[in-house]
Amino acid sequence: RINSGRLWDSLMEMAKIGPGVKGGNNRQTLTDADREGRLLFQRWCEAAGCTMTVDSMGNMFARRAGADPSLPPVVLGSHLDTQPTGGKFDGVLGVLGGLEVIRTLNDLGLKTRHPIEVANWTNEEGTRFTPAMVASGVFAGAFTQDEVYAIRDREGRRFGEELKRIGFVGTEPVGQHPIKAYFELHIEQGPILEAEGCDVGVVTHGQGQRWFDIRLTGFESHAGTTPMPRRRDALLGAAKIVQAVNEIALAHAPHAVGTVGVLDPYPGSRNVIPGAVTMTVDFRHPDDAVLADMKARLEAALDKACAEGRLEREVSEVFYYPPVAFDPACVSAVRRAAERLGYKHRDIVSGAGHDACYIARVAPTAMIFCPCVDGISHNEEEDITPDWAAAGVNTLFHAAVETAEI
Amino acid sequence: RINSGRLWDSLMEMAKIGPGVKGGNNRQTLTDADREGRLLFQRWCEAAGCTMTVDSMGNMFARRAGADPSLPPVVLGSHLDTQPTGGKFDGVLGVLGGLEVIRTLNDLGLKTRHPIEVANWTNEEGTRFTPAMVASGVFAGAFTQDEVYAIRDREGRRFGEELKRIGFVGTEPVGQHPIKAYFELHIEQGPILEAEGCDVGVVTHGQGQRWFDIRLTGFESHAGTTPMPRRRDALLGAAKIVQAVNEIALAHAPHAVGTVGVLDPYPGSRNVIPGAVTMTVDFRHPDDAVLADMKARLEAALDKACAEGRLEREVSEVFYYPPVAFDPACVSAVRRAAERLGYKHRDIVSGAGHDACYIARVAPTAMIFCPCVDGISHNEEEDITPDWAAAGVNTLFHAAVETAEI
Ligand SMILES: NC(=O)NCCC(=O)O
Ligand SMILES: NC(=O)NCCC(=O)O
Repeated sequence: RINSGRLWDSLMEMAKIGPGVKGGNNRQTLTDADREGRLLFQRWCEAAGCTMTVDSMGNMFARRAGADPSLPPVVLGSHLDTQPTGGKFDGVLGVLGGLEVIRTLNDLGLKTRHPIEVANWTNEEGTRFTPAMVASGVFAGAFTQDEVYAIRDREGRRFGEELKRIGFVGTEPVGQHPIKAYFELHIEQGPILEAEGCDVGVVTHGQGQRWFDIRLTGFESHAGTTPMPRRRDALLGAAKIVQAVNEIALAHAPHAVGTVGVLDPYPGSRNVIPGAVTMTVDFRHPDDAVLADMKARLEAALDKACAEGRLEREVSEVFYYPPVAFDPACVSAVRRAAERLGYKHRDIVSGAGHDACYIARVAPTAMIFCPCVDGISHNEEEDITPDWAAAGVNTLFHAAVETAEI
Repeated sequence: RINSGRLWDSLMEMAKIGPGVKGGNNRQTLTDADREGRLLFQRWCEAAGCTMTVDSMGNMFARRAGADPSLPPVVLGSHLDTQPTGGKFDGVLGVLGGLEVIRTLNDLGLKTRHPIEVANWTNEEGTRFTPAMVASGVFAGAFTQDEVYAIRDREGRRFGEELKRIGFVGTEPVGQHPIKAYFELHIEQGPILEAEGCDVGVVTHGQGQRWFDIRLTGFESHAGTTPMPRRRDALLGAAKIVQAVNEIALAHAPHAVGTVGVLDPYPGSRNVIPGAVTMTVDFRHPDDAVLADMKARLEAALDKACAEGRLEREVSEVFYYPPVAFDPACVSAVRRAAERLGYKHRDIVSGAGHDACYIARVAPTAMIFCPCVDGISHNEEEDITPDWAAAGVNTLFHAAVETAEI
């Protein structure tokens, strides 16, 4: 069993870096706070006897040597970056849980045949630089490094420049890193496990996602003097799209979700009819055919809103990945571990995207979910209990050690 | 007749200060650009032999002496501040038109019995510091100076501090300035005069306005893992209000208008369900009873959206003024002037708020409208022709001189 107090202390120590405004964290990717978090993780790994490798996407791999140095490592990981108003556990649990596995192996003086590594993947969240999971995505060949380096944040700063600025352009070429198996422990970020009183979720699939950027263009004019029939109000069109996104998700109940998270009217003056709006759409579903239908319905809603409001539009799909099935052997290893430890568990589909969804393309992969209070995540109030954290990390420990072989 | 070339040159010279991004102006109130515009206006007035008085709200009065110094002045004016993406004529035409009246009187060597003054009212636009027309409002007793000094812009800077920073806290107590009559020339900012081929609009009324600030609060959560029925999406609620505002205006066609110009979802991350939205509503109608009904319908729409979406709300009415009827004698003076000059004219109701709407509370007041291309205003593309400008200023000249008496 892992040391639950030590695990919790490390989680709380990391949460001091990039504090949020309401008790959570704002440690967005490639900021100074991200650098500080990475350096703390690196110090801890080195203190646990690991050697650190960083690749050219800033992905970090802390290796505990195995008995046979020629064998590829079992990798445990997740991400240390957070949402702008994020919690203390989303991502962090999987990274520091991996570190706790290594610390426990050290305590026990156990040597595994395969090396064990803890990974911290760059920019999982995708808020500052869209899309999400880009660095595990490049690792898995879903994107090229050059295209990701060129992505800009809202202030116009490039990913590549910011990675360099924080000093994490590593020397290892990205993707040149053999992996025997990848296990990612993560909080569920949804309400199911807690509601059913489960300690552990055995993640069998990740649902598919399609993300869009939309720009509607009408015509700015005076709010007091422009008669209603003459208006080309981009915000009125955008409001129809917000409602359409909601209806499209409800049309595919209960599994579909649809969200508009960003909506920015221009010029943003109270007595000016908005002449343009930029907005985002996020669609998710476990079935790729349903996702395709959701996209088609969005296009139809845009046709209608633009025709009614005499608006022009630009739409780009900035992210798309089909649903993922995790590796049956790795999933079984997780299920066996939970059973062996006597945890109440259930199979579950991931609603969120995870680095594991990309790594699954290049290595046998599975995920472990930890319950979280009220299913709240991407919110500073996100919370878990030390017992839930320990159950997740114990399960990770057993699955990892079984796979790495004693 | 006034000197139309000189008028146009001054308009173009002023437009160089605080240039916009698409050919218009961004000379928002109490910015460095506003100060520069004020100083240029002051130099021009002094060169025309006027003496400048500034009051404690930063309102500027440039006086051309009359034959009888004991008589109150006829005041001609408007504002030099602009929208963030504003045009070159909104406000500026009325101020520089007033200056052109004085320059023409100088050319002609005419002395009026009453002094003639040109006024530049502070913060007409109300975008940076809400509400609009605050300085003519304090002048007319609609607000207190202290409450206006305390208003903050979005960066948290106070009106009073910014007025001091640009050096325009004058020595004259605000409102201690007798006015025989006030004439404001302004672009129509709507499509009617141009559509009907009129040179001049004789403004008989200003429509009423009610402005609201609304904050909807739901709960931020993860876009991928939060099932639709559990969501408290503040942006979905806000989208319903945007549509309701449109429907409320259409329910009172053809005269009502309703606009949401600002809408800001929090935290503004593409994979986070917005937990809060701040937004504005602007309602206008020439009949106060209809305005009251529009407000009641907005409350009902808020009740419904908040109940459906389990949202909380805060609503504050940040601006309200009932419809204004201008002074019959002043309106007649404007109509007579347009007739005498042979201009095609029509009576018209102002869709926009103007400083004249407040000054009408303390002095006999009327307005003159100048057509503008396609009714476009609060847009950098706002445009007028030199002939329209000249027709407006000629009408202003004749109404002013008749009232100030030769
Ligand atoms: N796990 C997680 O929140 N990932 C961010 C990408 C997503 O929105 O699914
Ligand atoms: N004339 C003008 O645009 N005034 C600003 C206040 C309003 O929106 O009516």
